[in-house]
Amino acid sequence: MKIQLINPNTSTAMTAALTASAQHLLRPGNQLLAVTNAAGPASIEGHYDEALSVPGLLQAIRDGEREGVEGHVIACFGDPGLLAAREIARYPVIGIAEAAMHLATWVATGFSIVTTLGRTKVIARHLVERYGFHAQCRGIHAVEIPVLALDQDPDGLRRLMRSACREALERDESGAIVLGCAGMSHLAQTLQADLGVPVIDGVGAALKLVETLGELRLSTSKRGDLDFPLPKSYAGFLRGFAVGA
Amino acid sequence: MKIQLINPNTSTAMTAALTASAQHLLRPGNQLLAVTNAAGPASIEGHYDEALSVPGLLQAIRDGEREGVEGHVIACFGDPGLLAAREIARYPVIGIAEAAMHLATWVATGFSIVTTLGRTKVIARHLVERYGFHAQCRGIHAVEIPVLALDQDPDGLRRLMRSACREALERDESGAIVLGCAGMSHLAQTLQADLGVPVIDGVGAALKLVETLGELRLSTSKRGDLDFPLPKSYAGFLRGFAVGA
Amino acid sequence: MKIQLINPNTSTAMTAALTASAQHLLRPGNQLLAVTNAAGPASIEGHYDEALSVPGLLQAIRDGEREGVEGHVIACFGDPGLLAAREIARYPVIGIAEAAMHLATWVATGFSIVTTLGRTKVIARHLVERYGFHAQCRGIHAVEIPVLALDQDPDGLRRLMRSACREALERDESGAIVLGCAGMSHLAQTLQADLGVPVIDGVGAALKLVETLGELRLSTSKRGDLDFPLPKSYAGFLRGFAVGA
Amino acid sequence: MKIQLINPNTSTAMTAALTASAQHLLRPGNQLLAVTNAAGPASIEGHYDEALSVPGLLQAIRDGEREGVEGHVIACFGDPGLLAAREIARYPVIGIAEAAMHLATWVATGFSIVTTLGRTKVIARHLVERYGFHAQCRGIHAVEIPVLALDQDPDGLRRLMRSACREALERDESGAIVLGCAGMSHLAQTLQADLGVPVIDGVGAALKLVETLGELRLSTSKRGDLDFPLPKSYAGFLRGFAVGA
Amino acid sequence: MKIQLINPNTSTAMTAALTASAQHLLRPGNQLLAVTNAAGPASIEGHYDEALSVPGLLQAIRDGEREGVEGHVIACFGDPGLLAAREIARYPVIGIAEAAMHLATWVATGFSIVTTLGRTKVIARHLVERYGFHAQCRGIHAVEIPVLALDQDPDGLRRLMRSACREALERDESGAIVLGCAGMSHLAQTLQADLGVPVIDGVGAALKLVETLGELRLSTSKRGDLDFPLPKSYAGFLRGFAVGA
Amino acid sequence: MKIQLINPNTSTAMTAALTASAQHLLRPGNQLLAVTNAAGPASIEGHYDEALSVPGLLQAIRDGEREGVEGHVIACFGDPGLLAAREIARYPVIGIAEAAMHLATWVATGFSIVTTLGRTKVIARHLVERYGFHAQCRGIHAVEIPVLALDQDPDGLRRLMRSACREALERDESGAIVLGCAGMSHLAQTLQADLGVPVIDGVGAALKLVETLGELRLSTSKRGDLDFPLPKSYAGFLRGFAVGA
Repeated sequence: MKIQLINPNTSTAMTAALTASAQHLLRPGNQLLAVTNAAGPASIEGHYDEALSVPGLLQAIRDGEREGVEGHVIACFGDPGLLAAREIARYPVIGIAEAAMHLATWVATGFSIVTTLGRTKVIARHLVERYGFHAQCRGIHAVEIPVLALDQDPDGLRRLMRSACREALERDESGAIVLGCAGMSHLAQTLQADLGVPVIDGVGAALKLVETLGELRLSTSKRGDLDFPLPKSYAGFLRGFAVGA
Repeated sequence: MKIQLINPNTSTAMTAALTASAQHLLRPGNQLLAVTNAAGPASIEGHYDEALSVPGLLQAIRDGEREGVEGHVIACFGDPGLLAAREIARYPVIGIAEAAMHLATWVATGFSIVTTLGRTKVIARHLVERYGFHAQCRGIHAVEIPVLALDQDPDGLRRLMRSACREALERDESGAIVLGCAGMSHLAQTLQADLGVPVIDGVGAALKLVETLGELRLSTSKRGDLDFPLPKSYAGFLRGFAVGA
Repeated sequence: MKIQLINPNTSTAMTAALTASAQHLLRPGNQLLAVTNAAGPASIEGHYDEALSVPGLLQAIRDGEREGVEGHVIACFGDPGLLAAREIARYPVIGIAEAAMHLATWVATGFSIVTTLGRTKVIARHLVERYGFHAQCRGIHAVEIPVLALDQDPDGLRRLMRSACREALERDESGAIVLGCAGMSHLAQTLQADLGVPVIDGVGAALKLVETLGELRLSTSKRGDLDFPLPKSYAGFLRGFAVGA
Repeated sequence: MKIQLINPNTSTAMTAALTASAQHLLRPGNQLLAVTNAAGPASIEGHYDEALSVPGLLQAIRDGEREGVEGHVIACFGDPGLLAAREIARYPVIGIAEAAMHLATWVATGFSIVTTLGRTKVIARHLVERYGFHAQCRGIHAVEIPVLALDQDPDGLRRLMRSACREALERDESGAIVLGCAGMSHLAQTLQADLGVPVIDGVGAALKLVETLGELRLSTSKRGDLDFPLPKSYAGFLRGFAVGA
Repeated sequence: MKIQLINPNTSTAMTAALTASAQHLLRPGNQLLAVTNAAGPASIEGHYDEALSVPGLLQAIRDGEREGVEGHVIACFGDPGLLAAREIARYPVIGIAEAAMHLATWVATGFSIVTTLGRTKVIARHLVERYGFHAQCRGIHAVEIPVLALDQDPDGLRRLMRSACREALERDESGAIVLGCAGMSHLAQTLQADLGVPVIDGVGAALKLVETLGELRLSTSKRGDLDFPLPKSYAGFLRGFAVGA
Repeated sequence: MKIQLINPNTSTAMTAALTASAQHLLRPGNQLLAVTNAAGPASIEGHYDEALSVPGLLQAIRDGEREGVEGHVIACFGDPGLLAAREIARYPVIGIAEAAMHLATWVATGFSIVTTLGRTKVIARHLVERYGFHAQCRGIHAVEIPVLALDQDPDGLRRLMRSACREALERDESGAIVLGCAGMSHLAQTLQADLGVPVIDGVGAALKLVETLGELRLSTSKRGDLDFPLPKSYAGFLRGFAVGA
């Protein structure tokens, strides 16, 4: 089974980092196809960046299918374009925010999210509401580091995250940490060791859930709103996105 | 005050129709700048179409500002890209679903939404949740007519809508109708006359709310998540969307 | 279009102040008819005061209609008697709490309310729940100044409000301020200048929304619970409130 | 212990009926003081009637205290003026809608409300939301009989209620019936016998809960919003309602 | 009327204490039958203890019925096995958490819970959600004293509770205290005197509510999920729990 | 990795059936340890049966750990004793209702549950609320077949389930089916083929999620309420359940 790991931002460095932290999680025989968004923002730090990451992401999904992938991971904590991706895709699509939050509810009765910039907290907040976890998500916290600066000072980041997570667990009286950015993926195991509580990285989580859906022979329902898009013409620089018209 | 009416789909016919039904609502001295999305789907009938209507819509907002508009209406019932638009815009941005639902709560304790295709109902459902109106929205109904077919048989549409609205009012025990598509805009007054209850067209509603915010000297908060996007590079066919980088 | 601005308390000074701060917002050709409640409490600072402001308020609405008004504003942040007023009125009725909260959701993803006395916070809290804004209202705060003392020390009040609003924005991580009392109406513009975020005065907001509904030819649904009251006899000192009996 | 049973409407016939159905429930030694509202509507069938029942009801509570009552029941299913009454009263105040709904959750996991007129359903709906029982209240139904007509055809009413309750239990898959009007009080026992499920009359329920609070030496908290009203002047025909001014 | 007070843990000392604090609340003619769980944990301080308190508790209910009791109180704040107990019992069953929370909403618009160990807070939190009181319960607090240590230093406990309650009232802006453990039962009256707000002990509350249901001739609905269990065989050390098989 | 599949009822036939339908889903190298509850009801069809399935289930988990299992599945749709099991277990514990509902939200925006007896629907309803899926679960339906009769007429059951699922999809406008009983496990693939929508069996789902948590090195948080039970004595026939006392 080929699984596509889509980095919705255009930073190839982050794609490489995600691959590094996810690769080893694949089941024997499965294959990871990591792709960087060919269009859009270098990092996703708001509603605007997020919206503009979607066309390239949808293109990547269509390309992936042509290359025979049988599942897709959207590796940005805002789960950009998730439902649109499910509509266009034949195979399962999982977002990392979704994956991390669902997992968190199986290992704790309450969890905290620790993310990058305060301005992105509302995006997590809206996902929590949409996914139904307002009773389980006890707090959303930000370390105020831009996404692309996450890899500049590894030790500093680890220290900062450790103290931010400790404070979150304390203040929220929660039992698990959800990492609020794909760029924090590599920290999951070390933080888990430091904190002694489950620290959940959505990238690995989503990857395994795609494998799981595949093994259970489950995919997106094509009954109703997630059925393939209706054929119609598309115009302008998005002309190519027309489906079966 | 110049107000921009953005049709997020690429159908100029619909833009013309929206202009016709909204024009007369403008306050003396104000000016309507109707624009058709230059990129994306001919009609918006799902998550995929909606996501792909956003880049062109955001471009339109930036162009509008350069042309001196002081307010924007997003004329699609899914309120596509609403928060991204608020982030990029200096002036107020109102979506028609939002506008119609808010108004409905001021003229009735419960309202029904009547939209085009069943597959779009979940989009309205998600907006109802997001805006907080799950207690006031008593039902969402579809007449199963594609958006671009709405103008093919005016009399048939009016009859169909009339009976669909009657059934909705009856089953939902609601007091007002929210029209679930910009393309139904021209029907509001006649249906209101037919049904004897408020029938709310989001296009006119949003237009007036933009005027209202302007007169109250209120615009989007630039504190927090709706502040202008952070400067960064954009790649590929969306290169042009970079902000202040 | 004549619009009636009803001050539900019996303080003529406050009515004058409200008129002063709202007058200039009227559209050309429209006319403001400000009235002071002829019966009830000098100020509304609890459930008891609020309940007892309603009969006079309903009387004012009936008188207003006889004088040809085509819309009503209830200028107390508890929105006293709102549904009863809609039931009796032929034309739109808007409460200032409702108006301010709805507007706040169009300019920010989260807002804070700053009101007078702590004991009134629960009234705002109940309205937030009723209107569906528990996800958008991030906090309710009180400056602990009685309503009628608001105008005693203008500079002190402005300083106090400024710091209370700053603290609210900080603690709630919100993007806009909703003024929690009609008596704070005159502060909106100065506070907005001081704080650099939208500061929303419900009085002006409600006034404009009534104009808006009028221009859209929308009024309260007379289908269902907001239909005119059933004819019946009334007894005692409320004898005069019988409708069509 | 003297308990005051307040009929918020002005129909002495209904007060007599309520007394008849509640009297025998009193604990030995306790005394029932039934009073009819001296001001307001002959029956409460909407927001307007309800709002106008409150002043007389609050007057009754103050009179009751002077006569030594140590608890109050508000015998209208809309629980009119409940919080205002708690603010002014030294002793417990219970509304019959509140009492009936709370009891229903102790004898069934889901209940149905059967009330008089469809136009009053939204009042029950708002109470369900306010009290927190949206998950337990599975339906609200109306038999479309005016409050004052309830006693015109006893046998017909019983038959009608029986079939309406049966349909409600069936459609809502609920386990108990809450009677949605004080005027249905006398039917509780017979309907319970007919239907074989708990049928809950709020009048009796509220009466017993007031006794219970008294025996537990519990009364309304005077900390915060339910503390006695602040002293202030009252004007006009409500002049007499001023408290400690 | 004989009422059974079930202590779901196996501490006879606590049973004695509960009896002492509840006995005097019984109505003349009624009789208290206090029983200690014959199987399970010495104290209930988590999900595991709670789950394992249920079989003995259900046995106690069946024994109670044989001894002619006509109502049951489950005297542990987690309301263990409440629905199972209602299914098996012919007569009303009330849990003390349920009883205390419901009462609290009649004497205050917001209440705080003060319980023993932090690890049990989530149990209270889940009950608050289940019962529908998330808008009324403003906070859950723990004094970090094990259940069985509650009686070791009476004066210290009272001082500790007093300050914990004061802090809770302050931080939560609540008007009443709900005691979060049966073992705090004896403190209700003294704390109420100390704090000047209603302090609610669920044991007494539940006892009175059982009497109330009895006097109203109401019992658990046997229509639907609370009907007597279906007859079937039981195996192993629970063999004896088979019903009518 | 050894995974324990616990059948909480005492029917060895059902355990065999579950093993048959789950066995093939195991990843190479992993091993399934299916156990039948040694104590409790032959089938779980209500709150009472469910509560009494828990002690044996908890015993099975402790036994499983001693036999080296590294994950547990609770194979009853009520997820009996889930939190108690997580408290006592060192390794992940997943319930099949939880697993099925979570998966359903990744393949459809709305799902329907089809279960055995109507009286068990409230159990599913409570889980939906607890897990946060009230917006995604659009309906719960029952075929009114006792759990142990599910295997009596395979063809009849398949026909019945097929039509019940079709009706559910239609009425609920949902996109996926969640099977509401472990005993329906073997029907998932055939129904999925018949209906053309995802049909989710919680047994397989839970099994794969346990594998997934294991591969991600995630287990239950031992911080807070899911930490190992506090040491204390246990009495009576549950004496053996004492932990570390």
